[in-house]
Amino acid sequence: EVSFDPKEHQHLRYNPLRDNWVLVSAHRMKRPWAGQVEKPPEEHVPRHDPSNPLCPGNTRANGEVNPNYDSTFLFENDFPALQPDAPDPGSDQHPLFQSKAARGVCKVMCFQPWSDLSPPLMKNKSFVKVYWIKVGQSSVEELVRYVPLVQIFENKGAMMGCSNPHPHCQVWASNFLPNEPALSDRCQRAYYQKHGEPLLLQYARQEAEKKERVVVESSDWLAVVPYWATWPYQTLLLPRRHVLRINDLTTEERGGLADIMKRLLTKYDNLFEISFPYSMGWHGAPTGPSLKEDNSHWQLHAHYYPPLLRSATVKKFMVGYEMLAQEQRDLTPEQAAEKLRNLPEEHFKTKGH
Amino acid sequence: EVSFDPKEHQHLRYNPLRDNWVLVSAHRMKRPWAGQVEKPPEEHVPRHDPSNPLCPGNTRANGEVNPNYDSTFLFENDFPALQPDAPDPGSDQHPLFQSKAARGVCKVMCFQPWSDLSPPLMKNKSFVKVYWIKVGQSSVEELVRYVPLVQIFENKGAMMGCSNPHPHCQVWASNFLPNEPALSDRCQRAYYQKHGEPLLLQYARQEAEKKERVVVESSDWLAVVPYWATWPYQTLLLPRRHVLRINDLTTEERGGLADIMKRLLTKYDNLFEISFPYSMGWHGAPTGPSLKEDNSHWQLHAHYYPPLLRSATVKKFMVGYEMLAQEQRDLTPEQAAEKLRNLPEEHFKTKGH
Ligand SMILES: O=P(O)(O)O[C@H]1O[C@H](CO)[C@@H](O)[C@H](O)[C@H]1O
Ligand SMILES: O=P(O)(O)O[C@H]1O[C@H](CO)[C@@H](O)[C@H](O)[C@H]1O
Repeated sequence: EVSFDPKEHQHLRYNPLRDNWVLVSAHRMKRPWAGQVEKPPEEHVPRHDPSNPLCPGNTRANGEVNPNYDSTFLFENDFPALQPDAPDPGSDQHPLFQSKAARGVCKVMCFQPWSDLSPPLMKNKSFVKVYWIKVGQSSVEELVRYVPLVQIFENKGAMMGCSNPHPHCQVWASNFLPNEPALSDRCQRAYYQKHGEPLLLQYARQEAEKKERVVVESSDWLAVVPYWATWPYQTLLLPRRHVLRINDLTTEERGGLADIMKRLLTKYDNLFEISFPYSMGWHGAPTGPSLKEDNSHWQLHAHYYPPLLRSATVKKFMVGYEMLAQEQRDLTPEQAAEKLRNLPEEHFKTKGH
Repeated sequence: EVSFDPKEHQHLRYNPLRDNWVLVSAHRMKRPWAGQVEKPPEEHVPRHDPSNPLCPGNTRANGEVNPNYDSTFLFENDFPALQPDAPDPGSDQHPLFQSKAARGVCKVMCFQPWSDLSPPLMKNKSFVKVYWIKVGQSSVEELVRYVPLVQIFENKGAMMGCSNPHPHCQVWASNFLPNEPALSDRCQRAYYQKHGEPLLLQYARQEAEKKERVVVESSDWLAVVPYWATWPYQTLLLPRRHVLRINDLTTEERGGLADIMKRLLTKYDNLFEISFPYSMGWHGAPTGPSLKEDNSHWQLHAHYYPPLLRSATVKKFMVGYEMLAQEQRDLTPEQAAEKLRNLPEEHFKTKGH
């Protein structure tokens, strides 16, 4: 009998946060690629583009003029998917034609005034200030009081649908708990009830011991390629302490977070020596009415979903089999973690400077 | 009070096949697009390319030489994600590190010898013969006896990860029930138990009466933009009779299927006057051990997931908010259905020929 080798033999792995399975077929990396080749990310983004609606001093689509901001700039999305005052659709009562009201707010936050300064290239100090004090506090704290979910996310790179190269993230707050956090809530709650400890606290401890999927770590934080990763270089970023929501981080943990994010993002950029595209976002315990409930089963975490597989121009396509049957990956999470772990922590663009 | 208008006011719609919700924000179509522009699909695919491993008479990656096939050509994928003999991974017993054996077969089927003849351009008669008699019978019948799931799917276009322009589909058979059909099975079963009728039979009847989401129909078949569609021009293709699996279709229904697929695909090509990219695939009752069980809750259907949103070169990105929170669409299913319904049934490439 041949003995099992995860790099040679396909197998399934269980995702406890989504209660489903991923097919790992690492031998698929051997197939030649004759499919789509992407445009590599833009190398020379101008620092200030007079026609870019996100730059300081420019006019946006709705006629508003941006201030000459010099740190962060937060404003309401000019084309929001969620608005505060949409009327209730009513429902036609039939179980196959159900609709519900959706209300909310969509905000955009520019990290700082320069379009060519992506997060991994920012100075540590301004990164903390910009990213955490502003998003984590002023914008979010006001929203969490009222709505069940405040989704903070960043689409980076045109390949990930980002329609503007100026570094920014988004905050979409809704009067409903969307599918993904609702699923994660169910899974974490069931695990807690069965095992008496939050799923992700137990997981982080195990990974910190096992080491093979760790990418970067510090005294407060841990970034791993999760055992059940679907995207090739997907990572999960976790605090070591039990923290329910982003607002509950201490000043020290915020500082540590800026540091570990910079290290992770630098490795991402160094992987293919480009500004690495991804979608990322935070999941924490629900807010609004849930603030009064027991949410001990929750652990704050961030997901990074980067699309690239083979090079700066060949991504993984989650298509036919993945859409209709099950997600499938072409290298093991351990292979991905090892590659990222071994990359330098100095950014390829500033090397030797 | 403003009265509700689905084109102006965002709302949620329930997907009964996946037990989740989609956010419909049709007013988002007004936002300008400065993001990624795709390469339009290749216009001039050579009929026979001596370097294409899928063409008749050519040598494939593993050294095998293709026959000079003149109708369909079915063979085992040279880089299969599922192989018949992978050893069992064992399991480390910890609930957060679960793995399972995955075994199966991956086949590829070229529809016919010409690389430049896409399905909507094929003659009706050969389309039935090729697509249905061969895929539906010889390959599938042999597999369904043993395995729980035989997933037939087609990735069309480089934009949908198709790595070879020669028209082909794939058949991946697995010793496990993958996530998506497992979820669909649960949803259809629960509906049947509660309402005493298969979910999709009831749905098709309702849609045939309502008409507003119908794209094409015939005596045996119905294609609609489902009430809960996530992709902009997503469609659901359904038989009108209660049919559990593709192999259960009558000869007449297969003929009718070729006809309605050609009509649907012609409309798709006509929408932006290009060879329309999509991933599509069939869901039917599970097979293998399930052949002996009662699967009356199932209804055979095909899903079409096309990525394009605004034009031949601007697709919908299911990224940040969609990956982390909930899928969101930028036009209503009714708007999409109306657009498709009103397109001619004559293919733009053969018009006037
Ligand atoms: O087998 P193909 O068509 O080369 O590959 C394509 O379809 C597969 C099944 O949906 C995906 O896993 C691949 O990412 C995609 O590129
Ligand atoms: O708002 P943006 O960045 O222009 O738009 C992008 O992110 C949104 C939220 O993930 C998606 O719905 C869009 O498809 C994508 O292009």
